[in-house]
Amino acid sequence: MARKLVKKRGKKVGAAPGTLVHVGDKTDTVAQIRVVDYDQEHLRDQRLKDPNACRAFKSGPRVAWINVEGVHEVHTVEALGQGLGLHPLVMEDILNTDQRPKVESYDDYLYIVIKMLQYDPLQHEIRPEQVSLILARHYVLSCQERAGNVFDGVRERLRTGRRIRFLGTDYLAYALLDAIVDNYFALLEQLGERIEALEEELITRPTPATLAQIHHFKREMLLLRKAVWPLREALAKLTRDETSLIAAETRIYLRDVYDHCVHVLDTLETLRDLLAGMLDLYLSSISNRMNEIMKVLTIMATIFIPLTFIAGVYGMNFEHMPELAWPWAYPAVLLLMLGVAAGLLVFFRLRKWI
Amino acid sequence: MARKLVKKRGKKVGAAPGTLVHVGDKTDTVAQIRVVDYDQEHLRDQRLKDPNACRAFKSGPRVAWINVEGVHEVHTVEALGQGLGLHPLVMEDILNTDQRPKVESYDDYLYIVIKMLQYDPLQHEIRPEQVSLILARHYVLSCQERAGNVFDGVRERLRTGRRIRFLGTDYLAYALLDAIVDNYFALLEQLGERIEALEEELITRPTPATLAQIHHFKREMLLLRKAVWPLREALAKLTRDETSLIAAETRIYLRDVYDHCVHVLDTLETLRDLLAGMLDLYLSSISNRMNEIMKVLTIMATIFIPLTFIAGVYGMNFEHMPELAWPWAYPAVLLLMLGVAAGLLVFFRLRKWI
Amino acid sequence: MARKLVKKRGKKVGAAPGTLVHVGDKTDTVAQIRVVDYDQEHLRDQRLKDPNACRAFKSGPRVAWINVEGVHEVHTVEALGQGLGLHPLVMEDILNTDQRPKVESYDDYLYIVIKMLQYDPLQHEIRPEQVSLILARHYVLSCQERAGNVFDGVRERLRTGRRIRFLGTDYLAYALLDAIVDNYFALLEQLGERIEALEEELITRPTPATLAQIHHFKREMLLLRKAVWPLREALAKLTRDETSLIAAETRIYLRDVYDHCVHVLDTLETLRDLLAGMLDLYLSSISNRMNEIMKVLTIMATIFIPLTFIAGVYGMNFEHMPELAWPWAYPAVLLLMLGVAAGLLVFFRLRKWI
Amino acid sequence: MARKLVKKRGKKVGAAPGTLVHVGDKTDTVAQIRVVDYDQEHLRDQRLKDPNACRAFKSGPRVAWINVEGVHEVHTVEALGQGLGLHPLVMEDILNTDQRPKVESYDDYLYIVIKMLQYDPLQHEIRPEQVSLILARHYVLSCQERAGNVFDGVRERLRTGRRIRFLGTDYLAYALLDAIVDNYFALLEQLGERIEALEEELITRPTPATLAQIHHFKREMLLLRKAVWPLREALAKLTRDETSLIAAETRIYLRDVYDHCVHVLDTLETLRDLLAGMLDLYLSSISNRMNEIMKVLTIMATIFIPLTFIAGVYGMNFEHMPELAWPWAYPAVLLLMLGVAAGLLVFFRLRKWI
Amino acid sequence: MARKLVKKRGKKVGAAPGTLVHVGDKTDTVAQIRVVDYDQEHLRDQRLKDPNACRAFKSGPRVAWINVEGVHEVHTVEALGQGLGLHPLVMEDILNTDQRPKVESYDDYLYIVIKMLQYDPLQHEIRPEQVSLILARHYVLSCQERAGNVFDGVRERLRTGRRIRFLGTDYLAYALLDAIVDNYFALLEQLGERIEALEEELITRPTPATLAQIHHFKREMLLLRKAVWPLREALAKLTRDETSLIAAETRIYLRDVYDHCVHVLDTLETLRDLLAGMLDLYLSSISNRMNEIMKVLTIMATIFIPLTFIAGVYGMNFEHMPELAWPWAYPAVLLLMLGVAAGLLVFFRLRKWI
Ligand SMILES: [Mg+2]
Ligand SMILES: [Mg+2]
Ligand SMILES: [Mg+2]
Ligand SMILES: [Mg+2]
Ligand SMILES: [Mg+2]
Ligand SMILES: [Mg+2]
Ligand SMILES: [Mg+2]
Ligand SMILES: [Mg+2]
Ligand SMILES: [Mg+2]
Ligand SMILES: [Mg+2]
Ligand SMILES: [Mg+2]
Ligand SMILES: [Mg+2]
Ligand SMILES: [Mg+2]
Ligand SMILES: [Mg+2]
Ligand SMILES: [Mg+2]
Ligand SMILES: [Mg+2]
Ligand SMILES: [Mg+2]
Ligand SMILES: [Mg+2]
Ligand SMILES: [Mg+2]
Ligand SMILES: [Mg+2]
Ligand SMILES: [Mg+2]
Ligand SMILES: [Mg+2]
Ligand SMILES: [Mg+2]
Ligand SMILES: [Mg+2]
Ligand SMILES: [Mg+2]
Ligand SMILES: [Mg+2]
Ligand SMILES: [Mg+2]
Ligand SMILES: [Mg+2]
Ligand SMILES: [Mg+2]
Ligand SMILES: [Mg+2]
Ligand SMILES: [Mg+2]
Repeated sequence: MARKLVKKRGKKVGAAPGTLVHVGDKTDTVAQIRVVDYDQEHLRDQRLKDPNACRAFKSGPRVAWINVEGVHEVHTVEALGQGLGLHPLVMEDILNTDQRPKVESYDDYLYIVIKMLQYDPLQHEIRPEQVSLILARHYVLSCQERAGNVFDGVRERLRTGRRIRFLGTDYLAYALLDAIVDNYFALLEQLGERIEALEEELITRPTPATLAQIHHFKREMLLLRKAVWPLREALAKLTRDETSLIAAETRIYLRDVYDHCVHVLDTLETLRDLLAGMLDLYLSSISNRMNEIMKVLTIMATIFIPLTFIAGVYGMNFEHMPELAWPWAYPAVLLLMLGVAAGLLVFFRLRKWI
Repeated sequence: MARKLVKKRGKKVGAAPGTLVHVGDKTDTVAQIRVVDYDQEHLRDQRLKDPNACRAFKSGPRVAWINVEGVHEVHTVEALGQGLGLHPLVMEDILNTDQRPKVESYDDYLYIVIKMLQYDPLQHEIRPEQVSLILARHYVLSCQERAGNVFDGVRERLRTGRRIRFLGTDYLAYALLDAIVDNYFALLEQLGERIEALEEELITRPTPATLAQIHHFKREMLLLRKAVWPLREALAKLTRDETSLIAAETRIYLRDVYDHCVHVLDTLETLRDLLAGMLDLYLSSISNRMNEIMKVLTIMATIFIPLTFIAGVYGMNFEHMPELAWPWAYPAVLLLMLGVAAGLLVFFRLRKWI
Repeated sequence: MARKLVKKRGKKVGAAPGTLVHVGDKTDTVAQIRVVDYDQEHLRDQRLKDPNACRAFKSGPRVAWINVEGVHEVHTVEALGQGLGLHPLVMEDILNTDQRPKVESYDDYLYIVIKMLQYDPLQHEIRPEQVSLILARHYVLSCQERAGNVFDGVRERLRTGRRIRFLGTDYLAYALLDAIVDNYFALLEQLGERIEALEEELITRPTPATLAQIHHFKREMLLLRKAVWPLREALAKLTRDETSLIAAETRIYLRDVYDHCVHVLDTLETLRDLLAGMLDLYLSSISNRMNEIMKVLTIMATIFIPLTFIAGVYGMNFEHMPELAWPWAYPAVLLLMLGVAAGLLVFFRLRKWI
Repeated sequence: MARKLVKKRGKKVGAAPGTLVHVGDKTDTVAQIRVVDYDQEHLRDQRLKDPNACRAFKSGPRVAWINVEGVHEVHTVEALGQGLGLHPLVMEDILNTDQRPKVESYDDYLYIVIKMLQYDPLQHEIRPEQVSLILARHYVLSCQERAGNVFDGVRERLRTGRRIRFLGTDYLAYALLDAIVDNYFALLEQLGERIEALEEELITRPTPATLAQIHHFKREMLLLRKAVWPLREALAKLTRDETSLIAAETRIYLRDVYDHCVHVLDTLETLRDLLAGMLDLYLSSISNRMNEIMKVLTIMATIFIPLTFIAGVYGMNFEHMPELAWPWAYPAVLLLMLGVAAGLLVFFRLRKWI
Repeated sequence: MARKLVKKRGKKVGAAPGTLVHVGDKTDTVAQIRVVDYDQEHLRDQRLKDPNACRAFKSGPRVAWINVEGVHEVHTVEALGQGLGLHPLVMEDILNTDQRPKVESYDDYLYIVIKMLQYDPLQHEIRPEQVSLILARHYVLSCQERAGNVFDGVRERLRTGRRIRFLGTDYLAYALLDAIVDNYFALLEQLGERIEALEEELITRPTPATLAQIHHFKREMLLLRKAVWPLREALAKLTRDETSLIAAETRIYLRDVYDHCVHVLDTLETLRDLLAGMLDLYLSSISNRMNEIMKVLTIMATIFIPLTFIAGVYGMNFEHMPELAWPWAYPAVLLLMLGVAAGLLVFFRLRKWI
């Protein structure tokens, strides 16, 4: 329960727009800036000490990818934003990691927010991380909350690949989005496997813990849906928009990411429906079990209650009870008891209880 | 239960349109009018005794912000409305605090209704307050139901800030809207925290009070949704509309408020779904507990019922019961009883009840 | 249950379009026609004996308001319709009081259907009544099912007001629509109050009658929604439509009615959700109560069942039961019983049942 | 359960488009073709033996109405289709009676599918029948599955009416659609009456049969919705479409049918919601009843269990039980028992169980 | 449970777009390529050993249908794709069998994804298979996962039919789509039959296995909906799109497939609602049965508990119990017992329990 559904942003209330305050998990690490700039022939990969040095890439001759790990350092993001001429609202949103996925057009760049999602197999929890992308003519700025290896594949392809080196910032931004969305499938596989295992458990041996698990996964689905649902609209905007920053050729690739996103949402919806069905099944199986218990109690009690009564009658101490002296009375009463029990058993059998 | 879901407006039924009647909570305080007018160089902050004096600001050379606290004084709102040339229907809506959030275009001004929302941590209740904004070329009129400090940040920025002093009434109106919507996040944080605490309580020690709390928060969610849902459409209209009252530059800021509003609605929807899931969980845990209780009763009753019957049989007073005289009969019956009990325990173990 | 959800219109099946048959509640009263015609200077209020006399108002120099109370008189409606040149389908719909709210454009008039809604505080039932409006250049025809006082305010304003006397038939039609929709708020207030009282009752002392009441109000909500939901679209059409019958100035007033209608629907939706939540709460409180009952039974039965067994054992009549002769046996058995009871009480306490 | 939710069309799988196979209920009757052709002065009503003779009406001088009863005769439909020059897909759809309601434009005719619905009061079941209409310039072809009297009203009006004889095929097609949709109201009346009777029964004396009935009607509603829902869109298309086959004047009449269709769907939705509410009510009343039963059992058992235990104690046969010899012991024990019972009754009263 | 809801595509995460990796069930069979090329006069049907030979058909004079069975052979699909000049993303999607149905336009071809659905009557499971179609000017490429006979009808019509031989690749693609969608009806028939049988079983003799079956079919419905729902939009795009690859005449045929798809979705929705209703019915019938069981227990226990108590009282061993000596005491007590039992029976009868 450490991960909150609603993030704290108390300090921000009432502040001027563009007030730069970090909203998100606190961390002690130092923010890292790494710049890869390349054209078809050359590629340079460097670590940037001074964020102000980013100005060099704002309209450089090559494609520059400026990657920041750690948006908790307000001054770093501020220096980058001022160096690259970003709108104060954009800087504010980069720092506030509680954004919905979205695409916003500014005069000479696009601002894209997307959620990176990691599955924590110990807690069975999804850990979301906000990624902000600035797609400009000459550079792509990507801001992550924490260090991570999800962009390693892109970095590798920049070094060794061909297509990506011949195309512009739009294709680079696509490659980053694709890396994040591809990762959603890995997440869904793990979730799907856990949920199907839970279903198996539910059918063979349901326990109260199964119920808690179902509730837990329904909760994770809420978070997942909140993180992915707005992305669909955002990606659709990218494939449609009339911005000159994205070439027609790249739009085909973005359509593929959009397609993946819709697929993820379909699967998510299916898993949600499956969990809802599992809850129904759990409740029914509780009712079934209660029925079983009640049946056993009712059969036992109903058979013995009249027998015990008969025994009680002949345990009374009245002086004038002529039956008590009859020699065949005892076996006769035992037979009577047997008859009552048999009659009740037949009655239960007719009701299909046994 | 003091706060009603449906406000009384009985007196208004059948009245002519534009009939000025206050609909809302009654109060004894005196309405306050405060006017801040400013340009890049000067700023004047004054209290207005006579509402008719507002005429001076209708087309003054500076930007004027006329703030009214207390719309229960019909004559004050009427004087202001007539001084500023407002449509009778607008005056009517300002007085009627039971409006949906909305934006309406009139010839030379926009009329905006929005709900200010405060969380009462004692009653765990949301206290809504209606704010009406008139955005005209030379002034912004804001009408609140009660005194409050939500606009203090804007007032402070007017005194000390730069950007807000260089821009027009559109930016001022934005700043007021932003202050209100930012406050929603504070509200959601408090609600979210309470609801997650409730979830914790539900899992560890559910009581009937937990159920009442879940119902209470579902109810608050209904009120919240009613207050925020129409705002989305209203703000979308502001960022889209072809009115010349809003500059393109300000639209970017309004898009940010719109974005916040959508975020609030997303979170609200998530909290609603969470509460629905919690209700399901509560019902299931009741069923589980009932199962436990029934199992204990069934086991106890089922084991002792036949034993008590056997004891009853040998408590009968028939004269001819040969077993009674056998020397080993008593321990034999005790062993029989032990056997029956053991058999039933094995049966329950096979059923996995114990 | 006197008011049917589906009205009988059996006679109409298979009839030609425009066949004039009354569908609705039968009544013995005589239909009343009342005509108010006015301009800025004069106003005449008369009762019309002969419906054919309406021809005079079809293109008279003044604005005429022809109000009919009692559409069960087919010949009256027919005479009016022919006198004013109405389409046969319009006459048919006026007589058939089982219409959805709607707006239909004809060549030189608009046909508007709306539901007047009255709350019957004895039966807690909504009584709907259909009102048909014909908005033409020179007259407004309004047809009600029964006599009533909902238009008295409009009549009063015609006599004494100014604005309404300076404007045309479009403003008159607006005033009639407004009078009806304003009345919805009175209805919602009464319903809301009853439902909140029911909620209070549900929380403090739920009975099966509470459940029947919840069901009853859910049913009324269905009827209400059916009567108001289509009105939204109809009013939106009025504020939008390109008909020359409605002046731009009047559209602002119609937008206000539309706004009220949306507000009514919002409140309705909230009340519906509240009722759904109340049903959930009722079901949960039944389950809670069952738990309480079962707990008491289980505790009592479980404590006494083994004690009664022990007493039964020493009530057996075997000759060879050495314990029976021991002097301390009786108090020892009493102590044993006490110990068993105490053990079980500790067990229940550990389970948090007591 | 004779009427299947999914119709068999196995033979058709894999066949070429336009393959003519009848899908629907088999019947032994012979298909009947009846042609009415008319203008303002003349009307001829004849039975057509040879379907090929229909060619004469394809572009005859009068309006011709070709009505077929029995689409199970593939060769008849094929001959008609070829005679009138229909597209193979249209012929295929006429024969396949498992179509959704729809309107399709072809070069010189419109193809309309609609469901005729009959209520079987014995089985409380809806019997759907598919009607196909071809609206061409000079003829209307209507194909029914079985003989029936739903079009008798139209036939009568053709003989005696005026309007219908002066207008073209579009008005004739409208008259046929109107006859079918008018019939839906009769159906809804019968359904609504049965459902309200069921509601009455549910409130006064619910039985498991009530539940089965609710389920049955929910099922009928599914079928009804499937048959009527797509008709709305189809009729909207007819009132909107730019085809020259429908005159502006007729569109007003088609708008009326559309209006009826929307009304039917509204009522259907209301009945569905009512049935859902009835199911909730049924489940709640079961729970209430269970509570009653448990209360009686708990009260009886809880009162007598300790009393029986006390009796058991003094039924033990220990030699040293001094109380047994006390003269007032018996009445004292009886008083003790009375006290225990009274105490428990007070406890139950405090819990509001009795 | 062998068929997973979420397919594994782990290897693909982080790979470059267009990386060719098979996602789907592994198989040992060899991929088969079969080419049918034809014009009105000639038809040739051959097996292609070398996939590179497909280049000959890219712009051949005849219509060519290239059918591949087995997309697990990456190199085969790659060779085909390169030979026909397909976009890398298309090749990637052909290999990744976990796609949503869709239509994508490329410069000179359309890419269509559709699901072939087979019902496994042993497992009562739906087995989906992905089919990719490339519709180009001179060829249609169809890629299936496994060998199968669903296209046999098309092959037969190519050999013997007339229409299909006179028309282009668009009509061929239509024929393939039609064959697949027609098959959905067969599937629905089988599912519908099973579900109606289950409903019958539910009403006559519900068991926990019935519940498991309902859950199973709800799950299959989720899968089915996921496979068919997006197809509607895809087919709508085909009938609408402005591509020159599809002739107006063929669009009429595609509209027919679209119509079938909508029909399938309607039926699916109906079956889903039916299953939801069946679950409600199951839960209610469990509650009803519990009520029955409780009633029997309560009646038996409530009648005998006071009788046994009375017997217990007169089984006490007090010395001073004067009744014990009365001669009529024993029959009087028996009568008392009878009276108590009769009273309770009357009470139960009044409550309508018996
Ligand atoms: Mg922002
Ligand atoms: Mg969000
Ligand atoms: Mg969302
Ligand atoms: Mg995909
Ligand atoms: Mg979907
Ligand atoms: Mg489900
Ligand atoms: Mg208003
Ligand atoms: Mg509102
Ligand atoms: Mg709302
Ligand atoms: Mg935001
Ligand atoms: Mg959501
Ligand atoms: Mg939920
Ligand atoms: Mg009508
Ligand atoms: Mg209606
Ligand atoms: Mg409705
Ligand atoms: Mg309003
Ligand atoms: Mg709602
Ligand atoms: Mg609710
Ligand atoms: Mg068809
Ligand atoms: Mg269909
Ligand atoms: Mg349907
Ligand atoms: Mg109607
Ligand atoms: Mg309902
Ligand atoms: Mg409900
Ligand atoms: Mg792809
Ligand atoms: Mg996909
Ligand atoms: Mg889906
Ligand atoms: Mg079809
Ligand atoms: Mg549907
Ligand atoms: Mg549904
Ligand atoms: Mg249902």
